[in-house]
Amino acid sequence: MNSKKKFAVVLAGSGVYDGSEIHEATLALYSISKNGGSYQIFAPNVNQYHVINHITGEEMSETRNVLVEAARIARGNIKDLKEFSADEFDAILFPGGFGVAKNLCTFAFAGAECEVNPDVASAIKAMHKAKKPIGALCISPALIAKVLGDVEVTIGEDEGTAEAISKMGATHVTTTHGEIVFDKENKIVTTPCYMLDATIAQIGDGADNVVKTIMAL
Amino acid sequence: MNSKKKFAVVLAGSGVYDGSEIHEATLALYSISKNGGSYQIFAPNVNQYHVINHITGEEMSETRNVLVEAARIARGNIKDLKEFSADEFDAILFPGGFGVAKNLCTFAFAGAECEVNPDVASAIKAMHKAKKPIGALCISPALIAKVLGDVEVTIGEDEGTAEAISKMGATHVTTTHGEIVFDKENKIVTTPCYMLDATIAQIGDGADNVVKTIMAL
Repeated sequence: MNSKKKFAVVLAGSGVYDGSEIHEATLALYSISKNGGSYQIFAPNVNQYHVINHITGEEMSETRNVLVEAARIARGNIKDLKEFSADEFDAILFPGGFGVAKNLCTFAFAGAECEVNPDVASAIKAMHKAKKPIGALCISPALIAKVLGDVEVTIGEDEGTAEAISKMGATHVTTTHGEIVFDKENKIVTTPCYMLDATIAQIGDGADNVVKTIMAL
Repeated sequence: MNSKKKFAVVLAGSGVYDGSEIHEATLALYSISKNGGSYQIFAPNVNQYHVINHITGEEMSETRNVLVEAARIARGNIKDLKEFSADEFDAILFPGGFGVAKNLCTFAFAGAECEVNPDVASAIKAMHKAKKPIGALCISPALIAKVLGDVEVTIGEDEGTAEAISKMGATHVTTTHGEIVFDKENKIVTTPCYMLDATIAQIGDGADNVVKTIMAL
Protein backbone atom coordinates (compact mmCIF):
# COMPACT_ATOMS: atom_id res chain seq x y z
CA MET A 1 0.00 0.00 0.00
CA ASN A 2 1.29 3.43 -0.96
CA SER A 3 0.46 5.57 2.06
CA LYS A 4 0.83 8.75 0.03
CA LYS A 5 -1.88 7.99 -2.55
CA LYS A 6 -3.47 11.23 -3.69
CA PHE A 7 -7.14 11.17 -4.65
CA ALA A 8 -9.11 13.67 -6.71
CA VAL A 9 -12.69 13.58 -5.36
CA VAL A 10 -15.32 15.05 -7.69
CA LEU A 11 -18.49 16.47 -6.14
CA ALA A 12 -21.81 17.50 -7.71
CA GLY A 13 -23.17 19.91 -5.10
CA SER A 14 -24.23 19.21 -1.49
CA GLY A 15 -27.36 17.20 -0.77
CA VAL A 16 -28.71 13.87 -2.03
CA TYR A 17 -31.62 15.17 -4.14
CA ASP A 18 -29.86 17.89 -6.16
CA GLY A 19 -26.15 17.45 -5.39
CA SER A 20 -23.64 15.00 -3.91
CA GLU A 21 -24.90 12.56 -1.29
CA ILE A 22 -23.34 14.01 1.86
CA HIS A 23 -22.75 10.75 3.76
CA GLU A 24 -21.11 9.06 0.75
CA ALA A 25 -18.88 12.07 0.07
CA THR A 26 -17.87 12.52 3.72
CA LEU A 27 -17.26 8.82 4.37
CA ALA A 28 -15.16 8.54 1.21
CA LEU A 29 -12.98 11.45 2.40
CA TYR A 30 -12.84 9.88 5.87
CA SER A 31 -11.69 6.55 4.44
CA ILE A 32 -8.98 8.20 2.33
CA SER A 33 -7.68 10.11 5.37
CA LYS A 34 -7.94 7.16 7.75
CA ASN A 35 -6.05 4.89 5.34
CA GLY A 36 -3.17 7.35 5.00
CA GLY A 37 -4.05 8.97 1.68
CA SER A 38 -4.69 12.60 0.81
CA TYR A 39 -7.32 14.28 -1.35
CA GLN A 40 -8.17 17.37 -3.35
CA ILE A 41 -11.85 18.05 -3.96
CA PHE A 42 -13.13 19.31 -7.32
CA ALA A 43 -16.50 20.26 -8.82
CA PRO A 44 -17.59 21.77 -12.12
CA ASN A 45 -18.30 25.51 -12.04
CA VAL A 46 -21.88 25.30 -13.39
CA ASN A 47 -25.32 25.96 -11.98
CA GLN A 48 -27.22 23.06 -10.46
CA TYR A 49 -29.98 21.63 -12.67
CA HIS A 50 -32.37 22.72 -9.89
CA VAL A 51 -32.65 23.14 -6.11
CA ILE A 52 -34.75 20.64 -4.13
CA ASN A 53 -36.25 21.24 -0.68
CA HIS A 54 -34.93 18.10 1.05
CA ILE A 55 -37.95 17.88 3.38
CA THR A 56 -40.79 18.18 0.86
CA GLY A 57 -38.98 16.95 -2.26
CA GLU A 58 -40.30 19.98 -4.13
CA GLU A 59 -38.32 22.26 -6.39
CA MET A 60 -37.38 25.65 -4.90
CA SER A 61 -37.27 28.84 -6.97
CA GLU A 62 -33.55 29.35 -6.39
CA THR A 63 -30.36 29.05 -8.38
CA ARG A 64 -27.30 27.48 -6.78
CA ASN A 65 -23.84 26.81 -8.21
CA VAL A 66 -22.41 23.27 -8.04
CA LEU A 67 -18.87 24.41 -7.14
CA VAL A 68 -20.07 26.86 -4.46
CA GLU A 69 -22.41 24.34 -2.81
CA ALA A 70 -19.88 21.49 -3.01
CA ALA A 71 -17.51 23.79 -1.09
CA ARG A 72 -19.76 23.16 1.95
CA ILE A 73 -18.61 19.52 2.02
CA ALA A 74 -15.04 20.62 1.19
CA ARG A 75 -14.91 23.29 3.94
CA GLY A 76 -13.88 25.78 1.25
CA ASN A 77 -10.89 23.74 0.04
CA ILE A 78 -12.12 22.98 -3.48
CA LYS A 79 -11.01 23.59 -7.08
CA ASP A 80 -12.84 24.12 -10.35
CA LEU A 81 -12.75 20.79 -12.23
CA LYS A 82 -11.27 22.69 -15.19
CA GLU A 83 -8.02 22.83 -13.17
CA PHE A 84 -7.84 19.04 -12.81
CA SER A 85 -4.76 17.34 -14.26
CA ALA A 86 -4.44 13.54 -14.29
CA ASP A 87 -0.67 13.89 -13.81
CA GLU A 88 -1.17 15.19 -10.27
CA PHE A 89 -3.29 12.34 -8.92
CA ASP A 90 -3.07 8.60 -8.27
CA ALA A 91 -6.83 8.04 -8.40
CA ILE A 92 -10.15 9.78 -9.01
CA LEU A 93 -13.31 9.11 -7.00
CA PHE A 94 -16.96 10.00 -7.57
CA PRO A 95 -19.37 9.83 -4.60
CA GLY A 96 -23.06 9.50 -5.55
CA GLY A 97 -26.28 11.49 -5.12
CA PHE A 98 -28.81 12.71 -7.69
CA GLY A 99 -26.48 15.61 -8.50
CA VAL A 100 -24.24 13.16 -10.36
CA ALA A 101 -27.18 12.30 -12.65
CA LYS A 102 -28.46 15.90 -12.86
CA ASN A 103 -25.38 18.17 -12.75
CA LEU A 104 -22.42 16.01 -13.88
CA CYS A 105 -24.49 14.33 -16.60
CA THR A 106 -28.17 14.15 -17.60
CA PHE A 107 -28.72 10.48 -16.74
CA ALA A 108 -31.67 11.30 -14.42
CA PHE A 109 -33.61 12.66 -17.39
CA ALA A 110 -32.17 11.00 -20.49
CA GLY A 111 -30.97 7.59 -19.20
CA ALA A 112 -28.61 5.83 -21.65
CA GLU A 113 -28.90 8.78 -24.07
CA CYS A 114 -27.54 11.22 -21.46
CA GLU A 115 -24.92 13.91 -22.06
CA VAL A 116 -21.90 14.37 -19.80
CA ASN A 117 -20.40 17.67 -18.60
CA PRO A 118 -17.24 18.09 -20.75
CA ASP A 119 -14.90 18.70 -17.77
CA VAL A 120 -16.21 15.55 -16.09
CA ALA A 121 -15.81 13.49 -19.28
CA SER A 122 -12.26 14.81 -19.79
CA ALA A 123 -11.21 13.96 -16.23
CA ILE A 124 -12.52 10.38 -16.47
CA LYS A 125 -10.95 9.80 -19.90
CA ALA A 126 -7.60 11.24 -18.82
CA MET A 127 -7.39 8.98 -15.74
CA HIS A 128 -8.45 5.93 -17.78
CA LYS A 129 -5.87 6.69 -20.47
CA ALA A 130 -3.19 7.06 -17.78
CA LYS A 131 -4.24 3.62 -16.41
CA LYS A 132 -5.02 5.17 -13.03
CA PRO A 133 -7.85 3.84 -10.83
CA ILE A 134 -11.38 5.28 -10.86
CA GLY A 135 -13.73 4.80 -7.90
CA ALA A 136 -17.48 5.37 -8.16
CA LEU A 137 -20.24 5.08 -5.54
CA CYS A 138 -24.03 4.80 -5.81
CA ILE A 139 -25.28 6.17 -9.19
CA SER A 140 -21.82 7.37 -10.32
CA PRO A 141 -20.98 4.06 -12.05
CA ALA A 142 -23.64 5.02 -14.65
CA LEU A 143 -21.59 8.14 -15.39
CA ILE A 144 -18.40 6.07 -15.78
CA ALA A 145 -20.25 3.64 -18.08
CA LYS A 146 -21.46 6.49 -20.27
CA VAL A 147 -17.96 7.94 -20.65
CA LEU A 148 -15.94 4.72 -21.01
CA GLY A 149 -18.47 2.28 -22.51
CA ASP A 150 -17.16 -1.28 -22.19
CA VAL A 151 -16.45 -1.53 -18.46
CA GLU A 152 -17.78 -3.68 -15.59
CA VAL A 153 -19.60 -1.85 -12.77
CA THR A 154 -22.32 -2.17 -10.12
CA ILE A 155 -25.11 0.11 -8.93
CA GLY A 156 -26.57 -2.64 -6.71
CA GLU A 157 -29.75 -4.28 -7.95
CA ASP A 158 -31.99 -1.63 -9.52
CA GLU A 159 -33.14 -3.21 -12.79
CA GLY A 160 -33.95 -0.02 -14.70
CA THR A 161 -30.57 1.52 -13.98
CA ALA A 162 -28.76 -1.77 -14.70
CA GLU A 163 -30.54 -1.98 -18.07
CA ALA A 164 -29.49 1.58 -18.97
CA ILE A 165 -25.91 0.71 -18.06
CA SER A 166 -26.03 -2.27 -20.44
CA LYS A 167 -27.42 -0.01 -23.18
CA MET A 168 -24.37 2.24 -22.75
CA GLY A 169 -22.15 -0.76 -23.58
CA ALA A 170 -21.07 -1.65 -20.03
CA THR A 171 -21.63 -4.81 -17.99
CA HIS A 172 -23.62 -4.58 -14.76
CA VAL A 173 -23.00 -6.97 -11.87
CA THR A 174 -25.61 -7.24 -9.10
CA THR A 175 -24.27 -6.58 -5.59
CA THR A 176 -25.53 -5.87 -2.07
CA HIS A 177 -24.41 -3.72 0.92
CA GLY A 178 -20.70 -2.96 1.09
CA GLU A 179 -19.79 -5.21 -1.85
CA ILE A 180 -17.62 -3.87 -4.64
CA VAL A 181 -17.12 -4.74 -8.29
CA PHE A 182 -13.49 -4.42 -9.36
CA ASP A 183 -12.90 -4.20 -13.11
CA LYS A 184 -9.18 -5.06 -13.01
CA GLU A 185 -8.46 -4.37 -16.68
CA ASN A 186 -9.87 -0.84 -16.49
CA LYS A 187 -9.02 -0.26 -12.81
CA ILE A 188 -12.59 0.73 -11.97
CA VAL A 189 -13.96 0.05 -8.47
CA THR A 190 -17.70 0.54 -7.79
CA THR A 191 -20.16 -0.06 -4.93
CA PRO A 192 -23.94 0.58 -4.58
CA CYS A 193 -24.15 2.65 -1.32
CA TYR A 194 -27.56 4.42 -1.16
CA MET A 195 -28.72 2.81 -4.45
CA LEU A 196 -29.77 0.24 -1.84
CA ASP A 197 -31.89 1.00 1.24
CA ALA A 198 -28.82 1.25 3.47
CA THR A 199 -27.73 2.44 6.91
CA ILE A 200 -24.97 5.02 7.16
CA ALA A 201 -22.72 2.30 8.66
CA GLN A 202 -23.16 0.30 5.43
CA ILE A 203 -22.26 3.41 3.40
CA GLY A 204 -19.04 3.62 5.40
CA ASP A 205 -18.27 -0.03 4.59
CA GLY A 206 -18.84 0.44 0.86
CA ALA A 207 -16.78 3.62 0.63
CA ASP A 208 -14.00 2.05 2.68
CA ASN A 209 -13.92 -1.08 0.48
CA VAL A 210 -13.60 1.06 -2.66
CA VAL A 211 -10.86 3.25 -1.18
CA LYS A 212 -8.87 0.31 0.25
CA THR A 213 -9.04 -1.56 -3.06
CA ILE A 214 -7.68 1.49 -4.86
CA MET A 215 -5.02 2.05 -2.17
CA ALA A 216 -3.77 -1.53 -2.64
CA LEU A 217 -3.16 -1.10 -6.39
CA MET B 1 -23.49 -1.38 26.27
CA ASN B 2 -27.11 -0.93 25.34
CA SER B 3 -27.17 -1.68 21.64
CA LYS B 4 -30.52 0.04 21.21
CA LYS B 5 -29.47 3.49 22.45
CA LYS B 6 -31.49 6.15 20.67
CA PHE B 7 -29.83 9.50 19.99
CA ALA B 8 -31.43 12.82 19.14
CA VAL B 9 -28.95 14.68 16.91
CA VAL B 10 -29.53 18.43 16.66
CA LEU B 11 -28.32 20.22 13.52
CA ALA B 12 -27.90 23.92 12.74
CA GLY B 13 -28.03 23.91 8.92
CA SER B 14 -25.58 22.34 6.46
CA GLY B 15 -22.09 23.79 6.01
CA VAL B 16 -19.33 24.81 8.41
CA TYR B 17 -19.54 28.61 7.99
CA ASP B 18 -23.30 29.14 8.38
CA GLY B 19 -24.68 25.78 9.54
CA SER B 20 -23.60 22.39 10.93
CA GLU B 21 -20.09 21.19 10.13
CA ILE B 22 -20.84 18.42 7.63
CA HIS B 23 -17.98 16.04 8.53
CA GLU B 24 -18.72 16.26 12.27
CA ALA B 25 -22.45 15.68 11.74
CA THR B 26 -21.95 12.79 9.30
CA LEU B 27 -19.23 11.08 11.34
CA ALA B 28 -21.34 11.36 14.52
CA LEU B 29 -24.27 9.65 12.72
CA TYR B 30 -21.84 7.06 11.32
CA SER B 31 -20.48 6.30 14.79
CA ILE B 32 -23.97 5.93 16.27
CA SER B 33 -24.98 3.53 13.48
CA LYS B 34 -21.72 1.56 13.53
CA ASN B 35 -21.91 1.10 17.31
CA GLY B 36 -25.45 -0.31 17.13
CA GLY B 37 -27.46 2.77 18.10
CA SER B 38 -30.17 4.63 16.25
CA TYR B 39 -30.84 8.32 15.72
CA GLN B 40 -33.47 10.92 14.91
CA ILE B 41 -32.25 14.22 13.52
CA PHE B 42 -33.77 17.54 14.62
CA ALA B 43 -33.26 21.21 13.80
CA PRO B 44 -35.04 24.42 14.77
CA ASN B 45 -37.45 25.77 12.15
CA VAL B 46 -35.90 29.24 11.88
CA ASN B 47 -34.02 31.13 9.19
CA GLN B 48 -30.23 30.98 9.21
CA TYR B 49 -28.51 34.07 10.57
CA HIS B 50 -27.01 34.43 7.08
CA VAL B 51 -25.75 32.45 4.09
CA ILE B 52 -21.99 32.24 3.44
CA ASN B 53 -20.35 31.40 0.13
CA HIS B 54 -18.03 28.61 1.33
CA ILE B 55 -15.38 29.41 -1.30
CA THR B 56 -15.03 33.18 -0.78
CA GLY B 57 -16.24 33.42 2.82
CA GLU B 58 -18.52 36.28 1.77
CA GLU B 59 -22.17 36.69 2.70
CA MET B 60 -24.67 35.84 -0.06
CA SER B 61 -27.92 37.78 -0.55
CA GLU B 62 -30.07 34.74 0.15
CA THR B 63 -32.31 33.46 2.92
CA ARG B 64 -32.14 29.81 3.92
CA ASN B 65 -34.03 27.91 6.61
CA VAL B 66 -32.06 25.91 9.20
CA LEU B 67 -34.48 22.95 9.20
CA VAL B 68 -34.69 22.78 5.38
CA GLU B 69 -30.90 22.96 4.91
CA ALA B 70 -30.18 20.51 7.74
CA ALA B 71 -32.47 18.08 5.88
CA ARG B 72 -29.65 17.76 3.32
CA ILE B 73 -27.50 16.00 5.92
CA ALA B 74 -30.55 14.08 7.17
CA ARG B 75 -31.60 12.90 3.67
CA GLY B 76 -35.05 14.35 4.41
CA ASN B 77 -35.56 12.37 7.61
CA ILE B 78 -35.66 15.28 10.06
CA LYS B 79 -38.06 16.79 12.61
CA ASP B 80 -38.71 20.29 13.88
CA LEU B 81 -36.95 20.60 17.25
CA LYS B 82 -40.30 21.74 18.71
CA GLU B 83 -41.37 18.08 18.45
CA PHE B 84 -38.46 16.84 20.59
CA SER B 85 -39.37 15.01 23.79
CA ALA B 86 -36.69 13.91 26.26
CA ASP B 87 -38.81 10.84 27.11
CA GLU B 88 -38.18 9.36 23.67
CA PHE B 89 -34.37 9.47 23.68
CA ASP B 90 -31.42 8.04 25.61
CA ALA B 91 -29.04 10.83 24.62
CA ILE B 92 -28.81 14.11 22.73
CA LEU B 93 -25.84 15.12 20.56
CA PHE B 94 -24.77 18.44 19.03
CA PRO B 95 -22.24 18.40 16.17
CA GLY B 96 -20.38 21.70 15.65
CA GLY B 97 -19.99 24.31 12.93
CA PHE B 98 -20.52 28.08 13.01
CA GLY B 99 -24.28 27.48 12.67
CA VAL B 100 -24.30 26.37 16.32
CA ALA B 101 -22.94 29.79 17.33
CA LYS B 102 -25.05 31.72 14.79
CA ASN B 103 -28.38 29.86 14.49
CA LEU B 104 -28.77 27.83 17.71
CA CYS B 105 -27.40 30.66 19.84
CA THR B 106 -25.68 34.00 19.26
CA PHE B 107 -22.28 33.04 20.71
CA ALA B 108 -20.46 34.05 17.49
CA PHE B 109 -21.57 37.66 17.99
CA ALA B 110 -22.24 38.07 21.72
CA GLY B 111 -19.82 35.60 23.34
CA ALA B 112 -20.66 34.89 26.99
CA GLU B 113 -23.66 37.29 26.77
CA CYS B 114 -25.26 35.21 23.98
CA GLU B 115 -28.92 34.22 23.73
CA VAL B 116 -30.04 30.67 23.02
CA ASN B 117 -32.87 29.57 20.72
CA PRO B 118 -35.70 28.60 23.13
CA ASP B 119 -36.30 25.15 21.58
CA VAL B 120 -32.58 24.37 21.84
CA ALA B 121 -32.44 25.53 25.47
CA SER B 122 -35.54 23.48 26.35
CA ALA B 123 -34.11 20.31 24.80
CA ILE B 124 -30.79 20.62 26.65
CA LYS B 125 -32.49 21.41 29.99
CA ALA B 126 -34.97 18.53 29.62
CA MET B 127 -32.22 15.98 28.96
CA HIS B 128 -30.10 17.32 31.83
CA LYS B 129 -33.09 17.19 34.21
CA ALA B 130 -33.79 13.60 33.12
CA LYS B 131 -30.12 12.77 33.86
CA LYS B 132 -29.59 11.65 30.28
CA PRO B 133 -26.24 12.12 28.50
CA ILE B 134 -25.44 15.13 26.32
CA GLY B 135 -22.70 14.99 23.67
CA ALA B 136 -21.23 18.12 22.09
CA LEU B 137 -18.54 18.54 19.41
CA CYS B 138 -16.38 21.51 18.36
CA ILE B 139 -18.03 24.83 19.39
CA SER B 140 -21.22 23.18 20.75
CA PRO B 141 -19.81 22.84 24.29
CA ALA B 142 -20.09 26.66 24.51
CA LEU B 143 -23.83 26.30 23.88
CA ILE B 144 -24.11 23.65 26.61
CA ALA B 145 -22.14 25.89 29.01
CA LYS B 146 -24.48 28.82 28.33
CA VAL B 147 -27.60 26.72 29.03
CA LEU B 148 -26.38 24.67 32.01
CA GLY B 149 -23.76 26.93 33.59
CA ASP B 150 -21.65 24.94 36.05
CA VAL B 151 -20.43 22.06 33.87
CA GLU B 152 -17.02 20.80 32.68
CA VAL B 153 -16.37 20.87 28.93
CA THR B 154 -13.69 21.23 26.25
CA ILE B 155 -13.45 23.13 22.99
CA GLY B 156 -9.76 22.24 22.57
CA GLU B 157 -7.27 25.02 23.26
CA ASP B 158 -8.67 28.29 21.86
CA GLU B 159 -8.08 30.80 24.68
CA GLY B 160 -10.77 33.32 23.76
CA THR B 161 -13.48 30.68 23.58
CA ALA B 162 -12.23 28.99 26.77
CA GLU B 163 -12.40 32.35 28.57
CA ALA B 164 -15.98 32.94 27.42
CA ILE B 165 -16.90 29.46 28.66
CA SER B 166 -15.48 30.32 32.09
CA LYS B 167 -17.47 33.58 32.10
CA MET B 168 -20.65 31.55 31.58
CA GLY B 169 -19.90 29.67 34.81
CA ALA B 170 -18.46 26.49 33.30
CA THR B 171 -15.01 24.92 33.61
CA HIS B 172 -12.90 24.51 30.49
CA VAL B 173 -10.35 21.70 30.16
CA THR B 174 -7.69 21.91 27.41
CA THR B 175 -7.59 18.90 25.06
CA THR B 176 -6.13 17.88 21.72
CA HIS B 177 -7.23 15.71 18.76
CA GLY B 178 -9.72 12.96 19.55
CA GLU B 179 -9.62 13.57 23.31
CA ILE B 180 -12.84 13.94 25.27
CA VAL B 181 -13.84 15.59 28.51
CA PHE B 182 -16.42 13.58 30.43
CA ASP B 183 -18.32 15.48 33.13
CA LYS B 184 -19.63 12.41 34.98
CA GLU B 185 -21.90 14.27 37.36
CA ASN B 186 -23.74 16.04 34.55
CA LYS B 187 -23.26 13.28 31.95
CA ILE B 188 -21.76 15.68 29.42
CA VAL B 189 -19.20 14.43 26.89
CA THR B 190 -17.32 16.94 24.71
CA THR B 191 -14.47 16.92 22.16
CA PRO B 192 -12.82 19.71 20.11
CA CYS B 193 -13.02 18.33 16.51
CA TYR B 194 -12.49 21.23 14.04
CA MET B 195 -11.88 23.74 16.86
CA LEU B 196 -8.39 22.35 16.24
CA ASP B 197 -6.67 22.25 12.83
CA ALA B 198 -7.66 18.61 12.28
CA THR B 199 -7.84 15.96 9.56
CA ILE B 200 -11.18 14.32 8.83
CA ALA B 201 -9.78 11.07 10.30
CA GLN B 202 -9.23 12.92 13.61
CA ILE B 203 -12.83 14.20 13.46
CA GLY B 204 -13.97 10.59 13.16
CA ASP B 205 -11.92 9.65 16.23
CA GLY B 206 -13.38 12.49 18.33
CA ALA B 207 -16.98 11.80 17.32
CA ASP B 208 -16.50 8.08 17.91
CA ASN B 209 -15.01 8.64 21.37
CA VAL B 210 -17.98 10.81 22.37
CA VAL B 211 -20.55 8.34 21.03
CA LYS B 212 -18.85 5.29 22.59
CA THR B 213 -18.59 7.01 25.98
CA ILE B 214 -22.32 7.80 25.87
CA MET B 215 -23.14 4.27 24.67
CA ALA B 216 -21.27 2.79 27.64
CA LEU B 217 -23.34 4.73 30.22
